[in-house]
Amino acid sequence: MSSSRVRKEVSAALYAFVDRQRPRMLAISDDLAPILSALDALLTEGKRLRPAFCYWGWRGVGGPERPEFVAAAASLELLQASALVHDDVMDASDTRRGQPSVHRRFQAMHENAGWPGAAESFGAGTAILLGDLCLVWSGEMYDTSGLDQETLRRGRPTYDLMRTEVMCGQYLDLLEQARGAAVPDSGTVEAALRVVEFKSAKYTIERPLHLGAAMAGADKRTLEALSAYGLPLGIAFQLRDDVLGVFGDPAETGKPAGDDLREGKRTVLVALAVERATPAQAEVMRARLGDPALGPEGVAELRSIIVDTGALTACEAMIDQHAAAAHTALSAAPITEEARAALADLAVAATARHS
Amino acid sequence: MSSSRVRKEVSAALYAFVDRQRPRMLAISDDLAPILSALDALLTEGKRLRPAFCYWGWRGVGGPERPEFVAAAASLELLQASALVHDDVMDASDTRRGQPSVHRRFQAMHENAGWPGAAESFGAGTAILLGDLCLVWSGEMYDTSGLDQETLRRGRPTYDLMRTEVMCGQYLDLLEQARGAAVPDSGTVEAALRVVEFKSAKYTIERPLHLGAAMAGADKRTLEALSAYGLPLGIAFQLRDDVLGVFGDPAETGKPAGDDLREGKRTVLVALAVERATPAQAEVMRARLGDPALGPEGVAELRSIIVDTGALTACEAMIDQHAAAAHTALSAAPITEEARAALADLAVAATARHS
Repeated sequence: MSSSRVRKEVSAALYAFVDRQRPRMLAISDDLAPILSALDALLTEGKRLRPAFCYWGWRGVGGPERPEFVAAAASLELLQASALVHDDVMDASDTRRGQPSVHRRFQAMHENAGWPGAAESFGAGTAILLGDLCLVWSGEMYDTSGLDQETLRRGRPTYDLMRTEVMCGQYLDLLEQARGAAVPDSGTVEAALRVVEFKSAKYTIERPLHLGAAMAGADKRTLEALSAYGLPLGIAFQLRDDVLGVFGDPAETGKPAGDDLREGKRTVLVALAVERATPAQAEVMRARLGDPALGPEGVAELRSIIVDTGALTACEAMIDQHAAAAHTALSAAPITEEARAALADLAVAATARHS
Repeated sequence: MSSSRVRKEVSAALYAFVDRQRPRMLAISDDLAPILSALDALLTEGKRLRPAFCYWGWRGVGGPERPEFVAAAASLELLQASALVHDDVMDASDTRRGQPSVHRRFQAMHENAGWPGAAESFGAGTAILLGDLCLVWSGEMYDTSGLDQETLRRGRPTYDLMRTEVMCGQYLDLLEQARGAAVPDSGTVEAALRVVEFKSAKYTIERPLHLGAAMAGADKRTLEALSAYGLPLGIAFQLRDDVLGVFGDPAETGKPAGDDLREGKRTVLVALAVERATPAQAEVMRARLGDPALGPEGVAELRSIIVDTGALTACEAMIDQHAAAAHTALSAAPITEEARAALADLAVAATARHS
């Protein structure tokens, strides 16, 4: 089916899964209704990228078109929802996908009710639990997709590896941000790229492709060919995200302008700017990056430095170069022509996007 | 095998699982070594109660003695580790099992390194990720225990239900603590018992028993008999926890004296005291419960109220009554004599303990 059809079916499978959980939860208590509403709001949005790559990994090596497979692939979206909810707590982000983040949503519920005690901890605690729920549901949705046990068994080692990798990548990301420029090997382009590899390239593209392909019984050569496409594309995807985090239009990204600068994210784009900065520019970056009160002028000043140092041009060049490598690898991959065409389209969507 | 032997084998299976993950993580980066050390420290301690109930559920309906089953049961300990690490972040607890809690451990690492930025958020963020890792590893450990696919498949619906229930129970617990006495139905003995049912009785005892029994192919009548033992025992277990949280010896519990009072936990014990308090006593409880700065005199004052209102006596009577109901149900359960004897011992250990 077409990629837009895959996206629709993935969404439908997600909603159906939550609808199966709904009565089970409400039977425990009506007080759980706000958790379900927050989940509904969270799962309505999303590019469904990981299920799409998983689907084309499966179809690319001859996996048949089956709704059960779409449900198994859609489970990756619950994993991603968990990561987003927990990320937002860790980064103290106010918004996600144009709506209040989950912890802010429950903080507001606490404030509006006028309960005693700390509304902020209630919000954070609820978001931790809701993220945990999404995390265990991702595994449950995979297991209960209706696929035969043998197909599910073939996918599990990849699923397991992917989850460990993304959590390790996220810790390395926290560590990079914590160390800032305080440690010699930290804050470099190389250190930022290592985070990108595990937190994004593998998790968003390579492993979902591998998961689908492994479930269809792909051999080693095919998995390697999918890596040769997926890893550079994943890096290009994240570098595009870095650029959007600094220069993106809030109306399209759903995040306030310059949010990544305010959060002090040690992205490849920032590392490129640090590497090229004059002492005066470096001083401004040190002082302003990660300032939670950073206003429009501060954002503008940091943007200028990123442009003036040539970091933006260098980052765009890296995106082009990695996207080209992905394209070349895709041409040679031993997969079906339908999957090749769909993956070529997804590569464009992942790197030329505005949100 | 004996219950103490089960405990040893569960620990060995856990260490073996983490040892399989270790090289995989260190291959990603040496920087992950502190995560592994924190995990090692966390998994050294623990009563291994949930794996024990799971084991006796399995053996009780004729499941054979197999190391693969012990590994599957031990996976519950990783689920519990995840819950503890996340709970400690939510409650801002400083200690766990006599050691610094995971978030405090990583906060200290940040402080000792003298990194820029907020040490506390680094600690909390790392603890969220480490809890997530334990959560996905629990599923992975179950799946890779080496048991046949059919046995694993029989257990999954119970495993899934248990995880959803415990997360719902934890949210209801947060909600009770947030609402305090602000909402008419909140803060009552009944509301506190609902939290106990889902957060403790089902999660600690009934579902682990069901999991083992379901994996061995138990029929409905047996599962019901196990509930008739497990649910009251689980309530008694949690009420003992409530008493220890207020009156326990820090040297035995590994938690500071009166920690539950300082955290403002809305336990059954506290609800019993609130129900029985004079207006003057109620006033003191309102003012002091949940005061993070509560000192030894404040703890002593609240303890006196809990004793003087008769709440402690009432709570001990509830423990006895539920333990007796569990004992009666156990006598009639259609399980092997070996399992019956082991479960009788576990019932005593769960309700007459000091830590």
